[in-house]
Amino acid sequence: MNSEQRPDIARLVISCPDQHGIVAAVSELIFDIGGNIITLDQYSTGVENGQFFQRTVFHLPGFAQRRQTVQQEVEERLAKRFSMEFHLTAADEPKRVAIFASKTDHCLLDLLWRHRRGDLPMDISMVVSNHPDLESDVRRFGIDFLHIPVDRDNKDAAEAEHLKLLRGKVDLVVLARYMQILSPYFLAEVGVPIINIHHSFLPAFIGAGPYQKAKDRGVKLIGATAHYVTEDLDEGPIIEQDVIRVSHADDVAQLTRFGADVERAVLSRAVKWHCEDRVIRHGSTTIVF
Amino acid sequence: MNSEQRPDIARLVISCPDQHGIVAAVSELIFDIGGNIITLDQYSTGVENGQFFQRTVFHLPGFAQRRQTVQQEVEERLAKRFSMEFHLTAADEPKRVAIFASKTDHCLLDLLWRHRRGDLPMDISMVVSNHPDLESDVRRFGIDFLHIPVDRDNKDAAEAEHLKLLRGKVDLVVLARYMQILSPYFLAEVGVPIINIHHSFLPAFIGAGPYQKAKDRGVKLIGATAHYVTEDLDEGPIIEQDVIRVSHADDVAQLTRFGADVERAVLSRAVKWHCEDRVIRHGSTTIVF
Amino acid sequence: MNSEQRPDIARLVISCPDQHGIVAAVSELIFDIGGNIITLDQYSTGVENGQFFQRTVFHLPGFAQRRQTVQQEVEERLAKRFSMEFHLTAADEPKRVAIFASKTDHCLLDLLWRHRRGDLPMDISMVVSNHPDLESDVRRFGIDFLHIPVDRDNKDAAEAEHLKLLRGKVDLVVLARYMQILSPYFLAEVGVPIINIHHSFLPAFIGAGPYQKAKDRGVKLIGATAHYVTEDLDEGPIIEQDVIRVSHADDVAQLTRFGADVERAVLSRAVKWHCEDRVIRHGSTTIVF
Amino acid sequence: MNSEQRPDIARLVISCPDQHGIVAAVSELIFDIGGNIITLDQYSTGVENGQFFQRTVFHLPGFAQRRQTVQQEVEERLAKRFSMEFHLTAADEPKRVAIFASKTDHCLLDLLWRHRRGDLPMDISMVVSNHPDLESDVRRFGIDFLHIPVDRDNKDAAEAEHLKLLRGKVDLVVLARYMQILSPYFLAEVGVPIINIHHSFLPAFIGAGPYQKAKDRGVKLIGATAHYVTEDLDEGPIIEQDVIRVSHADDVAQLTRFGADVERAVLSRAVKWHCEDRVIRHGSTTIVF
Repeated sequence: MNSEQRPDIARLVISCPDQHGIVAAVSELIFDIGGNIITLDQYSTGVENGQFFQRTVFHLPGFAQRRQTVQQEVEERLAKRFSMEFHLTAADEPKRVAIFASKTDHCLLDLLWRHRRGDLPMDISMVVSNHPDLESDVRRFGIDFLHIPVDRDNKDAAEAEHLKLLRGKVDLVVLARYMQILSPYFLAEVGVPIINIHHSFLPAFIGAGPYQKAKDRGVKLIGATAHYVTEDLDEGPIIEQDVIRVSHADDVAQLTRFGADVERAVLSRAVKWHCEDRVIRHGSTTIVF
Repeated sequence: MNSEQRPDIARLVISCPDQHGIVAAVSELIFDIGGNIITLDQYSTGVENGQFFQRTVFHLPGFAQRRQTVQQEVEERLAKRFSMEFHLTAADEPKRVAIFASKTDHCLLDLLWRHRRGDLPMDISMVVSNHPDLESDVRRFGIDFLHIPVDRDNKDAAEAEHLKLLRGKVDLVVLARYMQILSPYFLAEVGVPIINIHHSFLPAFIGAGPYQKAKDRGVKLIGATAHYVTEDLDEGPIIEQDVIRVSHADDVAQLTRFGADVERAVLSRAVKWHCEDRVIRHGSTTIVF
Repeated sequence: MNSEQRPDIARLVISCPDQHGIVAAVSELIFDIGGNIITLDQYSTGVENGQFFQRTVFHLPGFAQRRQTVQQEVEERLAKRFSMEFHLTAADEPKRVAIFASKTDHCLLDLLWRHRRGDLPMDISMVVSNHPDLESDVRRFGIDFLHIPVDRDNKDAAEAEHLKLLRGKVDLVVLARYMQILSPYFLAEVGVPIINIHHSFLPAFIGAGPYQKAKDRGVKLIGATAHYVTEDLDEGPIIEQDVIRVSHADDVAQLTRFGADVERAVLSRAVKWHCEDRVIRHGSTTIVF
Repeated sequence: MNSEQRPDIARLVISCPDQHGIVAAVSELIFDIGGNIITLDQYSTGVENGQFFQRTVFHLPGFAQRRQTVQQEVEERLAKRFSMEFHLTAADEPKRVAIFASKTDHCLLDLLWRHRRGDLPMDISMVVSNHPDLESDVRRFGIDFLHIPVDRDNKDAAEAEHLKLLRGKVDLVVLARYMQILSPYFLAEVGVPIINIHHSFLPAFIGAGPYQKAKDRGVKLIGATAHYVTEDLDEGPIIEQDVIRVSHADDVAQLTRFGADVERAVLSRAVKWHCEDRVIRHGSTTIVF
């Protein structure tokens, strides 16, 4: 068990205009309520007119019971004073996650397996797929598998079904090589963040067939990018990226095979960091503490 | 001294339609003339209608004296039979290289240092710059520095001067962060390959200001790309690329600083490989043996 | 399907004292019997008194039927002349592999997954474990799982049982985090190569508890090493290694988690390369083509 | 100019037994004196009986004039209460550094060049060498070069001369491939930290000739390690390490060439981090913020 996942561990993530005294005020509050800071990361986009971000993990005996009070203290002592947005979470209260997949298994299996070994602080509520292929793989992990076919004619109905499953039930949707584009309506309605894995080193090779494009362009490294999904396809804030060296001798099939390893590693890290409240969106970019 | 730089070492680089018997014919010829193969790399784009590439390094006593004869043997026994393009070089006959630079010193100095240590099998014929700033750094290495200012009004005259300096005098031009775009006329006239270093992981962030673009896009890795220069800016065949991890906390100045290390490493490798006859252009890509 | 796995693809791996004409003789033979070389890699430890190694992959129609003849040709035309050791394999004839594991699943599962996706050119004959924990994971892939407990008292009997299972039935044994030391008797009797994954960057942190040792020493990178097993524990020829960056803030549990990713990647690559006949042992080191 | 190098930027580095309220007390003090925290990193070896480390960078108008007062405030309000060791530095007050070198130039030149471009926040007081070879390279950067020959007979005298040069004049000694072992007497007397670059991935290949040892052992990656020098040769706390991939085909000369690139990068990073007060020694390890 990761030390951050123990009971009585709270995480406070804040964002506000940069100004004097924020760190002091936060740490003072934590001290006053009897907490002990475990880690504290902060970043400012600039002293003048900058935006300030901070993630503080602290130990507070009885946090589960006292959460409401702490929330209120933060609201009163910090949020108003600093025009602060914040969220307060319990490290032992895992995010509820729905994973969407299609036929490709490597990203999905990596998430299921890491989850089983306790490396991902989340509950997998369900796996949703437009194909039945991965059902037995998923059920084996004791996780619900929902096959909801999607085609041109039923896309609206399928998304309505998706929304019904997700609304109020999950905190995060992960697209683990889900080969359907989500409609703006779905994105507006789902109400939780969505993380996608794109099989290229964005912004290179936007769109379909990135390994073929990489082959045609003759790049010497291929990569993968995990990002939050926005209405602008492949343009959402990047959470994590990585690359692997390839050579002229690797054909597209080989690039795809190499790429699969990078994709699963990158997606797993992005999901882990999100579930640990390490990632803060800031415009079209992210802060990752 | 690298083993490949000793006397009596020949390199034969060939390209032809793929077909049976090429490796046998090449190695037989080398055996017949008394040579000993040191390394042999080959690659075919496909058995059917593919293009075949091979680089063979071999030891042949008295190669300097016998070069003409060997050239003729290859012409007669191989080139005709296999519709082969080839070039035959002596490993101890370094390429003559002109380096173009502007004000930034890191790529230039890295090439000069490596050359001085004997790591780059080339002769540096001259350094050409549109600014005088790097003159004393260059002269200190005993290398000619030519300051040829370039502005909107004198670009044609400057390029004419460049061509006069280069024609017949160099085998390669290296743009070590040279901040001028070469005209199509110059590219057509210069008659030797040109290697450029672009300060991004191409095809991402084409054009000017790639580190600013990388910052704006929020990428988690930045890179550099060495490529042959063609008329299509930033589109030439890629020789080498690499990346380095960055974070949200790195500003553009820091990205530029990190990037400089990647740029100089990537350019040095590309130049080294070119000078060792390891790089073969194939359409918009390269084979690197 | 990897191009190397198609029918009619042969691999010839040779080793002999370096001398003139080897490449020519090999490629000539292949041409004479109607083969077409796909890839050819060679390496010599030195022109004078050196040892020469070559791996040649070639396409030969009807290789399955003609294998005996080809074997004989190589014997007669090459092996005698060059005092050559060689082996000739069919690319579509996968190695038969036994995997040994204990309780840790990451290396084992990675091999099983990659095998299922068709990325590892091998047949998994069985999984052998001294613990029952991984049985259902393994059986799910349709692979035999044999639970053979090992303790101080029954070690000889257990190894006898192992040998009975393996002899003549497998071409390779892979130790996927198998937590038992194999006896010199077993190593002498098993008659096939054994690949082990050690959870450190050898030769650093030999023996047990390498992540604890790494933590104590304060290294900034941790690694894993796949090597052939010899009587000298952790001293066998290294096939592949890799590392991952860690920080002072990572405790031993976190190092272990990070390390698991490196271990499974390194072991999978080593096994793949071995099964593709890319790895040649040379004293206490390896050539990897 | 790095933002940390501007005037009015202070750095407070502390170490004390872990307990509640440290972050709050530090940030409160900074707020009280009118400072604004720019970055704050902390690490605890454990909540129970652990050791706590923190590096806080803050902006304080007029810090140069107020330094004494701040030092006193920290002493009174923090150091006593928390049994704290601390040091307070001004970011625009560079460390004074002596670089020791022998004949090899790559590490030395990399430091001199990075220093010239403003990437290393330090003053180079002198370069000391036991050989005259690098004198003109060093003087060209406008830096004093002191040639102090060392041999078996004059070692004590040489070290006495070293100490005379260094005492009270420098804050750090950097061994940039200095090929002499420093005596315990020297280490005891010099009174400032010493950073060394070892040309292997420690703890592998301790002692002389690491690239030869790496070749003999057949490792697939070679590395370099920057560490503080202690009486136990090659055993001092590691600051930074990195590796590069090599193959069976690379001879010792090639390993040495590849290794040189890793050495200079690793040493430069270690020196930079030390000069930015990012590195804290903790027993035989380091915290690097």
